[in-house]
Amino acid sequence: MLSPAFLSKLRSLLPPHCVLNEREDLLPFESDGLAAYRNTPDVVVLPENETQVAAILKLCHASKVAVVARGAGTGLAAGALPVDGAVLLVLAKLNRIKAIDPLARTAVVEPGVRNLAISEAVAEHGLYYAPDPSSQIACSIGGNVAENSGGVHCLKYGLTVHNILALRAWTIDGQLLEIGNESLDAPGYDFLALLTGSEGMLAVITEVTVKLLPRPQRAQVVLAAFDDVAKAGAAVGNIIAAGVVPAGLEMMDRLAIQAAEAFVHAGYPLAEALLLCEVDGVNEEVSADIYTVRQVLEASGAIEVRTAESEEQRLRFWAGRKAAFPAVGRLSPDYYCMDGTIPRAQLPHVLKRISEMSAECGLAVANVFHAGDGNLHPLILFDANTPGELAKAEDFGGRILELCVEVGGTITGEHGVGLEKIKQMCTQFATPELTRFHDVKAAFDPDKLLNPGKAVPELHRCAEWGAMHVHGGQLPHPELPRF
Amino acid sequence: MLSPAFLSKLRSLLPPHCVLNEREDLLPFESDGLAAYRNTPDVVVLPENETQVAAILKLCHASKVAVVARGAGTGLAAGALPVDGAVLLVLAKLNRIKAIDPLARTAVVEPGVRNLAISEAVAEHGLYYAPDPSSQIACSIGGNVAENSGGVHCLKYGLTVHNILALRAWTIDGQLLEIGNESLDAPGYDFLALLTGSEGMLAVITEVTVKLLPRPQRAQVVLAAFDDVAKAGAAVGNIIAAGVVPAGLEMMDRLAIQAAEAFVHAGYPLAEALLLCEVDGVNEEVSADIYTVRQVLEASGAIEVRTAESEEQRLRFWAGRKAAFPAVGRLSPDYYCMDGTIPRAQLPHVLKRISEMSAECGLAVANVFHAGDGNLHPLILFDANTPGELAKAEDFGGRILELCVEVGGTITGEHGVGLEKIKQMCTQFATPELTRFHDVKAAFDPDKLLNPGKAVPELHRCAEWGAMHVHGGQLPHPELPRF
Repeated sequence: MLSPAFLSKLRSLLPPHCVLNEREDLLPFESDGLAAYRNTPDVVVLPENETQVAAILKLCHASKVAVVARGAGTGLAAGALPVDGAVLLVLAKLNRIKAIDPLARTAVVEPGVRNLAISEAVAEHGLYYAPDPSSQIACSIGGNVAENSGGVHCLKYGLTVHNILALRAWTIDGQLLEIGNESLDAPGYDFLALLTGSEGMLAVITEVTVKLLPRPQRAQVVLAAFDDVAKAGAAVGNIIAAGVVPAGLEMMDRLAIQAAEAFVHAGYPLAEALLLCEVDGVNEEVSADIYTVRQVLEASGAIEVRTAESEEQRLRFWAGRKAAFPAVGRLSPDYYCMDGTIPRAQLPHVLKRISEMSAECGLAVANVFHAGDGNLHPLILFDANTPGELAKAEDFGGRILELCVEVGGTITGEHGVGLEKIKQMCTQFATPELTRFHDVKAAFDPDKLLNPGKAVPELHRCAEWGAMHVHGGQLPHPELPRF
Repeated sequence: MLSPAFLSKLRSLLPPHCVLNEREDLLPFESDGLAAYRNTPDVVVLPENETQVAAILKLCHASKVAVVARGAGTGLAAGALPVDGAVLLVLAKLNRIKAIDPLARTAVVEPGVRNLAISEAVAEHGLYYAPDPSSQIACSIGGNVAENSGGVHCLKYGLTVHNILALRAWTIDGQLLEIGNESLDAPGYDFLALLTGSEGMLAVITEVTVKLLPRPQRAQVVLAAFDDVAKAGAAVGNIIAAGVVPAGLEMMDRLAIQAAEAFVHAGYPLAEALLLCEVDGVNEEVSADIYTVRQVLEASGAIEVRTAESEEQRLRFWAGRKAAFPAVGRLSPDYYCMDGTIPRAQLPHVLKRISEMSAECGLAVANVFHAGDGNLHPLILFDANTPGELAKAEDFGGRILELCVEVGGTITGEHGVGLEKIKQMCTQFATPELTRFHDVKAAFDPDKLLNPGKAVPELHRCAEWGAMHVHGGQLPHPELPRF
């Protein structure tokens, strides 16, 4: 609970319409995209410029009040979940595109600018911003930086960290950090990468300089159907091994195909698994890659291979994949979207294990995911109104993440850890890494005021949870000391 | 000076041939590639496995003895310069290639493996490791990670940080950090990027998992001559603006061309400036790009444009560029190689200013550099035997770096800060960033035992030097608080 004195000081820093603490104004902010986690914020502030951001942070620092930064609220790991007694710092009003430089291929934007709005603003120059999370119509670049967001095209074009050049960020004590540069490299420790994906734990971002890419001359997509999920999984590795770097390489299993087909009628074959492989580039390169991809798919046992012959058909091929999440939402009152990554070679094994675990716990799973990256998105179907089903779904999700770590993967591909996966961080990392994470956090925020309780678990919590670090499916190397 | 008791404990950890402290054994380690900085180490240790590395670090930590890690010693910023009273930890004997996975396109190597040896070892699979510093025959991957090395091809393929997946690293107290993953992203703070380029200040690396790329089907190079350096500089920006991403885009000025031509007879035209633009990829893509590049070069005012018509000719075009550094070494008893980056659009202005400064101080400069990245390598010619000339060259070099910062660039492109550029760090960064660098350093190494005195200046030193932070040529934004 925040004191009236603190709230009064907070109000003095901002115009009246920028501070919300009536219950009906606060409710829209009680969760992010992971609605299973809810908590009504004590107060919401919506600063309109970075001077106000700095002033809010200085006040909170002086008053030892916690701060949770929030972008568009589309995150899927409860990273922006309000914390009791904290200020919810919403950056939506910092939404200006400050500069576009078509020659240097950069844009300078505020954190509240929507991901897609950047590409729209630079389209007249034949440019676009490459990372494309599913939520790109709504999600904002500040949140993308905080979570190091990916998307369908990150297989070829990289994650957010590979597509930004510089940040303006404010520490909890209201100091400005100017990080990064238009240059390829910067001296000093790589704070650009350190802050990217740091989930609001280290600093608050008020400006992002993004890289822009020229729109590829042509993009084309191949669709392949398989009678066996394992064969589709193996085909993914075979495409990469053939030297093709697809712009996107996505997979759906039978349940996801059925759901998407019933919803948008994309004309998908009703197979056990479906791959969509997009390639882009100059005309001749695309033709060469499409030829290779078709050959590999056929050699990998695809029962049907189709190539989109027009832009309209290309968009139709993608329509089912893009609508897959809402489509699965029609199958079940609720679903729980997981996000883990695995080495590509493990795809057949892990998909088989997920299917077995699904049978064991009695909850259906639809798989729709970035196969090329090994970034899984199992959608666990459940009914929150049936007592115990949410807990069962969460437990199942946690076991999937632990499986990812066991086979040498990670507990998050692009959604971040937030509050959702904090327990699995104990599986992912051993004490030395977790300790260093806390030490780095303390370098920026010694009072733990920024987004407390998220992203990195306290060591004693790992012990309480009985969580066990595994690495590559093995216990730590026996002949090496670990402390 | 290290105590006999400490040396005796150190010897107990290693076989006798792995500890050097006779003067004649120590001399080869007194400098790295920047031979103007020399200091004889007190003791050199050459561990043969990571258990020994951990034991050395634990002993040094317990004894509060500093540790300077060193790879192949090819660095150009005195980053591996021995420090008085410290142990020089040479990782050359950790030189095994531990695993190659052609399907996942990864290799697991020890830090002492030479950069080029990785590409040689994986050539049979049609793969290679992309970053190619000029020293790639000799430099080792551990040093590449420590300095985040680049090279001719990093314009298209990225720096070291973009081409590695995982590290095993040891903290000063002998704890193992397992960092990164075969996956595209990893949870937790991005320690992979944080350690890359950290110049031996945070941890000691004992294993690197690198990404491998398929050898491009074809590479072709265009050579263009200009009668004006500014026109060549503008052509660089025009090529990038035309949507081409060259595999390499290099520039040489008249003095460098003359030197290279006299040395290797590559057949270069004796112009004011010369550009070499290489493109690679599938056959048709290369043809399309070569056509575009030629058109842009002609429209940018090139007086001559040649395309290599055979692999032999391609190698001959490169021969002059690759020999440019030793070739310039024939012009003058000594030269000082600087390394700063600037936004590409600033190339004409900065080259003109360097030429003016050269006239002012009476020291000639040859320019040979990665123009596509805006990564300058001015070679300042001087004679160390003429009293005061080294100091004059260093002062001139420092002024070039400050000019880079003024136009929005950085004081290092790929060589790192080391001891050489530590003063210019005060120009590059303001107090908040420098403070946070020290805080992050303290998170890993609170006693400042790893590579003391390098990479990040103490704040009081900036004040003593009278160094003044500039950002983008401007003083800090007047309406924003800075503390």
